[in-house]
Order: sequence, then structure tokens, then C-alpha cells
Amino acid sequence: MIKEYPFFDEQIYQQQLTNGLQLIFIPKNGFKRSFVFFASHYGAAMNRFIPKGEKAYWDAPLGIAHFLEHQLFTMPDGQDASELLAKLGLDSNAFTNYSLTGYLFNGSDNILKGLTLLLDFVQTPHFTEKNVLKEQGIIAQELKMFLDRPGDALHYGLMQNMFFEYPLKHDVGGTLASIKDITAAHLRTCYRTFYQPANMTIIIVGDLNNIFKQEASFSDLVDFVSEHQKTKKFGKTTEIIVDYPQEPDFVRTNYDEKTMEITVPRAAVGLKIPFANLDFNQSMLLELRLKILLEANFGTSTDVYQEMLDQALIQSGIATEVYHDGKTGYVKISANTEQPQAFVKFVQERLLSLSQFQLDLLTFERFKKALIGNFIRALNSFEFLAVGYLEYQYRNSNLFAALQMSEDLTLEDLSSVQKYFTEDKLTSFIIFPNQSSLSKKASLE
Amino acid sequence: MIKEYPFFDEQIYQQQLTNGLQLIFIPKNGFKRSFVFFASHYGAAMNRFIPKGEKAYWDAPLGIAHFLEHQLFTMPDGQDASELLAKLGLDSNAFTNYSLTGYLFNGSDNILKGLTLLLDFVQTPHFTEKNVLKEQGIIAQELKMFLDRPGDALHYGLMQNMFFEYPLKHDVGGTLASIKDITAAHLRTCYRTFYQPANMTIIIVGDLNNIFKQEASFSDLVDFVSEHQKTKKFGKTTEIIVDYPQEPDFVRTNYDEKTMEITVPRAAVGLKIPFANLDFNQSMLLELRLKILLEANFGTSTDVYQEMLDQALIQSGIATEVYHDGKTGYVKISANTEQPQAFVKFVQERLLSLSQFQLDLLTFERFKKALIGNFIRALNSFEFLAVGYLEYQYRNSNLFAALQMSEDLTLEDLSSVQKYFTEDKLTSFIIFPNQSSLSKKASLE
Repeated sequence: MIKEYPFFDEQIYQQQLTNGLQLIFIPKNGFKRSFVFFASHYGAAMNRFIPKGEKAYWDAPLGIAHFLEHQLFTMPDGQDASELLAKLGLDSNAFTNYSLTGYLFNGSDNILKGLTLLLDFVQTPHFTEKNVLKEQGIIAQELKMFLDRPGDALHYGLMQNMFFEYPLKHDVGGTLASIKDITAAHLRTCYRTFYQPANMTIIIVGDLNNIFKQEASFSDLVDFVSEHQKTKKFGKTTEIIVDYPQEPDFVRTNYDEKTMEITVPRAAVGLKIPFANLDFNQSMLLELRLKILLEANFGTSTDVYQEMLDQALIQSGIATEVYHDGKTGYVKISANTEQPQAFVKFVQERLLSLSQFQLDLLTFERFKKALIGNFIRALNSFEFLAVGYLEYQYRNSNLFAALQMSEDLTLEDLSSVQKYFTEDKLTSFIIFPNQSSLSKKASLE
Repeated sequence: MIKEYPFFDEQIYQQQLTNGLQLIFIPKNGFKRSFVFFASHYGAAMNRFIPKGEKAYWDAPLGIAHFLEHQLFTMPDGQDASELLAKLGLDSNAFTNYSLTGYLFNGSDNILKGLTLLLDFVQTPHFTEKNVLKEQGIIAQELKMFLDRPGDALHYGLMQNMFFEYPLKHDVGGTLASIKDITAAHLRTCYRTFYQPANMTIIIVGDLNNIFKQEASFSDLVDFVSEHQKTKKFGKTTEIIVDYPQEPDFVRTNYDEKTMEITVPRAAVGLKIPFANLDFNQSMLLELRLKILLEANFGTSTDVYQEMLDQALIQSGIATEVYHDGKTGYVKISANTEQPQAFVKFVQERLLSLSQFQLDLLTFERFKKALIGNFIRALNSFEFLAVGYLEYQYRNSNLFAALQMSEDLTLEDLSSVQKYFTEDKLTSFIIFPNQSSLSKKASLE
């Protein structure tokens, strides 16, 4: 099936193979480079589920999706798949987020060989206690490194304040304690459940004539992947049942702090977006509405931003972030600041005033156009396009249809998110320099 | 792709064809009879949408999906498709509800010929102003007949009380006024948008060896339908964007009444289920929870039922209904009663008490088992199985997965629906006999 999005000059070829695997091709004619993405709809937010073949929910150890991603690169013969891809001249990578695990590579030649290898290593699970033990050491190092980064510490501090149970409060990688609980049997359970072909998608972005090194069409790609899949045996497809914890609309706690080895304090203010299962495309439109409000209030062109500079509440800049996963999410505003409490107070007051905020039509249209324009430009990245398309699909949105709808967003539509800006949904987190870093700073000055 | 549901001894074969059409086959080995169902995910609830190729929402005249269903039977050469199916010995029918339009037939022979004819007439739109005019007369008659039926009048009276805008308040067929507005151009717009192959599903239930009159597998069926689809031309697939009006949690009005030519008054009490987009399978589980509560309170084996008989609040019986479409829905309790006001008062008080109602574990398990058992027995009907499977899919449920989950429902789970039983969600509607029917009754006695 071909879907056309003439407004964006994009076409999407989409076909579900007989084993359930979804194959998506996005043509970029004339490009030498191709991007190949193989994803499981399995992320860190899906930590409580009914394992395939069982009848009761299981709470998996935190971080297991990410752990599984690491383990799959180790092939049964001990070789590392990323090295084999590198030998083909392909630049590979993998990542796990809250909604998916993705394996990917980029390159100009050997795309079909790379695709075969990618399918092979992801679809050949091989978990041993020995490998798990080794991986536990590697991931523990990775987690410790994350924990030492002030940006991550600030983020998860804020998320811990915000959420009672929702998985966004946990690092995708889990905790030092949780990864120690992971066994090879656990990995097999997760793999069996979430790596069924019907839960997976291949997305290829590029020029089929370059990929096949001869004139080729989407049906050649379908045939190529279908033939490969016939060489594999898969169990029967089962529905995957995940339990996402429902969150209260209010934050767990409205403030917390910690100290770290930094020189300038860091502060973040967060707003929790109420839990809901949104209609088709509404998740993406919700994000856009919030981004317009933030841009109009904290953007570098605003009086507010100038005021924060004048009062020395911020030094070099301010970061704003809006995230919604289809059910819940957050707004985050953070900065490096010598006056963290004053920064928090200022931002919170400003956020609370947004429930009454009136934007004029011209400014609204300007910010809307700018945000949509930025988004469309970002789609020039093959990776952003492929991963974004899939993530919006998982969020019950279609990237292009939602973009089309977003053009019709009106000033009045903003009011639907303005009701979120209430005291009980606000929280803040501050990281202060600890004594040792303060004395270091003193000696530097 | 094959999905197996060993607990229910069912298998589902599912394949999306290259033009987007979903093909589902449910094997019933050894059965001579087959059931064939061709559905568009287009029902009376989808009355506000962005027409294919356009950029703004359109409010279609009420009843247009049903009108379209009628019109498709008229083939370009003037023949009636149902007569052609009858000539093949096939028993055909069609219906429109809030979520789908379905065309179906049953039979033992000529199944493949019938399938070809079914695909042909549904996929050959032919709308003329002359045919539309003729149909307006036919449907007006149908609507008048519906309006005269006390059961329908009671139902839509209650729905009008309950909903502000949600389409459940309107008869699927529309109104006498709305169908007059329908034009051939409107029908083409709806057809173009909702009858895209990617929005349609073929479900066949039966024995492939009987259907093909030789040993055959699912891939033969896929090939058969694929070959047929190659003879047709379809436009590019586009996302369908429907706007479902959001409803307040409370009812529009808590009482209304009318008179009709009946001898015994009729009364209905309704409870509105709050608007929400539910998680996977939750819509079906919500219905089950409510059904258990109703069965435990108004079932024929209960003391309450006996009390209503003793007080002559009901005569011959009481009807309970639970409906949820994935977003909203209702509980309806109705009866023929000589004391309609007393019946309403009694039922409403009982419903309000349900917020505090405590069921004992044994009774809970008994009702749960009975309801699930009834449901599973109903699946013996090919039609119930096929239509049910699809409707649950549209409601973000999988029939078998939800049934499996429903076995694990606990007594504590009931509390999640008990909060619905509040005054502001209750409404009632009464139909009294009008003067002429009362005098008729008097003369009969």
C-alpha cells in the first residue's frame, strides 16, 4: 500500500509480510545514502506485561529492554554484529527509549547485505548466563557514568518528583540494583514476547535503484525481505498485553534537591501533563500547542527572556522541552543559574500565569509557522524521518496527517492545554555544587 | 500471519494485501456453510471528518453511511446485487451501525463466485441524483417505521437525554430532514474517503477445502482476493481523520417523556459512561464489569428482581443493556410497567447504591463465569464471531485476548466502574399511552 502526502512531497510504502513483520519504505530518489532501521515496539515503558504463553502480569526488572538490545549484538559464534556491519562499510548503532528498541545502520553500498545481517542478528537470540554476567558489568559502568552527568541527574530528579509509578521516572537503562536481577531466562521471556515479527518494523529510507544496484520497485524489496523471513522459524503470533500504570494528575512532590561536583547550580521546573489516552493525532497536536505557549513565553525573542537575563536569573540560556508519549508527559524548563531558587520561583509564577495567558493572533501564527517549519526541516534527516514516523505511529498519530492538521491549529485551540498550568502539576529540582566543587571553584577564581 | 488462541480453540489468519485491504480468515474445519463479511470502518459515529483530498472538517448529513450502504446494492446496469447473490443460492444482507458498514452473505456453494460479486458491487460505486431521490423515499419510509416502534422511541428518547452531541443520540439512519439533504456528490465524498481498501476488511469463516472445492490453504485465499483486486484501480491511500465530539461526563437532561399509541407504559433508566479513550482491551473489560454489577443487582435470580415483581413495578421482565464504543457508552435498564415513575425511582435508587455495593467473592465468580461462558457460546455463530472480532479490533481490543484477560478479572476490579453511579450521570425516559390508545384499551377490557 502506498500512502501519499503531497503537502510534504513524501510517499510511504507500507506492507505487512505474512509473518506479521511491517515493512516500510520511504523513497528518496537520487540519494546515494540509505538508512535502515529495524525496531521492536518494546521500550522501557513496557515493564509490566503478560509474557507470551502465560496468563499473569510480570514486573520485569527495570532496564531489561535496553539490556536485551546490548545482548543481541553478541552473536552465537561470539562475533559482534556491529563489527561485521563496519566491515561492510556500514555505520551501525542501536538505542532503546521508552517506546521502542531500534537497530540501525547508514551507508551507500552493501545495503542488502547489511539488511540481511541486521535481520539475522536481531532475529537470532542467544542468551547465556556468562554473557549476561559480562553485560551486567558493562551496563553498570554505563549507568554510573549517566548518574555522574549533571544533566541526567537533573532530568531524573525532576521525573522522580513528578511521577508516582510511570516509567518515565526511571532511566531507560534501569538501576544498578535492577540490572543485577536480570537473568538469561528473563531475556528469553522478553524476547519471545516483544520480538515477534508482528511487533517489529523495518524502515528503509533511500533510493531503491541504488540499494538494488539496478532498477527496482517496492515489490522487489518486499520479495527480498519475505524470502529472508522464510529461512527463519517463528512461533505463532500472540497479542501483547502491557499494563501502563495510570498516574494521578498531580505531582508526587513539588521539590527536591541534591549536590554534585559542579561549579554552577542547575535548576529545572517541570509541569506534569495529565494522564489520558488521546485520540488519533492528538498527542502530537498537544505537544505543538505546548511548544507554542513556551516559545511565546520563554523564547529568546521575548521580553520575559530579557528580564531573566537582566535579573541574572539565567546566564547563557534556557532549555525548554515538551514530551508526550501518548498517555502522559511533561514540560521541562531548565538552566544553569547562580540563583536557582529565584529562577524556579520566576519560572513557576510565569507558568501559572499561562492559564490566563492571551496570545495575539499574529504572534501565534508566527510561532506556529516557525515550529512547523523547524519540524519539517528536521525531516530532511533520514533518521529523524524514519524514527519519527514510527514513534508517531506507536502514539496513535500519523506524522504527516498530524502535521497537516497542525496547520489548521487555531489560537482558540491553545486553551485546551492552558488548563494544565496549575500549582499541583508543578515541581522543581535543583542541583547545588557540593563542598568539594565549591572549594575547587574558589581556588580557580 | 496466524494468531492462535488455544484457550478458545480458535485461529485467526490475517493478511493485509498490497492495496491495504485487510483479509481475515477464521477456519471452521468440517463445516459446509461459510460466512463472508465485507466491512468498511465507516459508521454513523463518523459524521464529522476531513474528506479525502481536502483540508477542513465536513459535517455530513446524519444517516449518510447507512444511505450509502443502501445505494451500493444498485449496480451500474440497474441490477440489484442482493438478487444476484440470491440467484447464486447465497443469503445476503447488509447493515450499518455506529462503527462500521457491513455487507455479508451465507451459503454452502458458490462462495468464491459470491465473494467476487460482493467485492465487485461494493467496489463499484455508482451514484446518480435519480437513484438518490428514489432512495430518499425508501429510507424515509424505513425511518417512519422505526419512529413508530415504541422500543426504538424509548431508546432514542433516552439517548437524547443522555448525550449533548455524541452520535449515539441519533438513529443510524439519520432523520427525515437530514436524508433529504443527501446528494450524489456527498455519497461520492464519503465513498472516496471511507471505502479506500486500507479502511476495509474481508472476513471469511468456514472450511477452505469446501470453499475452494479442493484442498486449499490461506495463501490460496490471499491469492484469489489479490488477483481480483488487481483488476480494480484505487487511488492512493490517505489517513482518515474523524472528529468524535467529546462529551461531558454528565447527562444533558435527567428526564423526558412522550406519548405513543401503546397500551402499557414503557420506562427506561440510563447511566452515561464518562468519555475516555481506553487502553487496549479496556473497553471490553469495562463492559464486562458493568454487566456483572447489573446481573448481580437486576438479574432474575436476585432478591431485587423478586421485589420488583412483588411491588408490581415490572410485569413480564426487565431488559438490561451495556454498550461501550471505546470512547463512551451507556447502561440501559428498561421495562414495560404500569407504574413507570415508581419503576424509574426504584431503579435509580438501586443504581445510585451501586457506588457502595459490596459483592461477595463467590457470587462475583459465578456471574463472571456465566457471562464469559455466554459470550464464548455466542461465538459459535459465525456472524457473531466475525462481526465481533472486527468491532473489538475497531475498539482497540482483541476479542480473544480480552476474553483471556477477563478470566483474571477480580472482585476489586469492580470498584473502577462503581464510581460511575452518580446522580449527574443518570437519566430516564417514559412513554405513556396516548389518549386514543387508552380508549382502545378501555374498550378491549
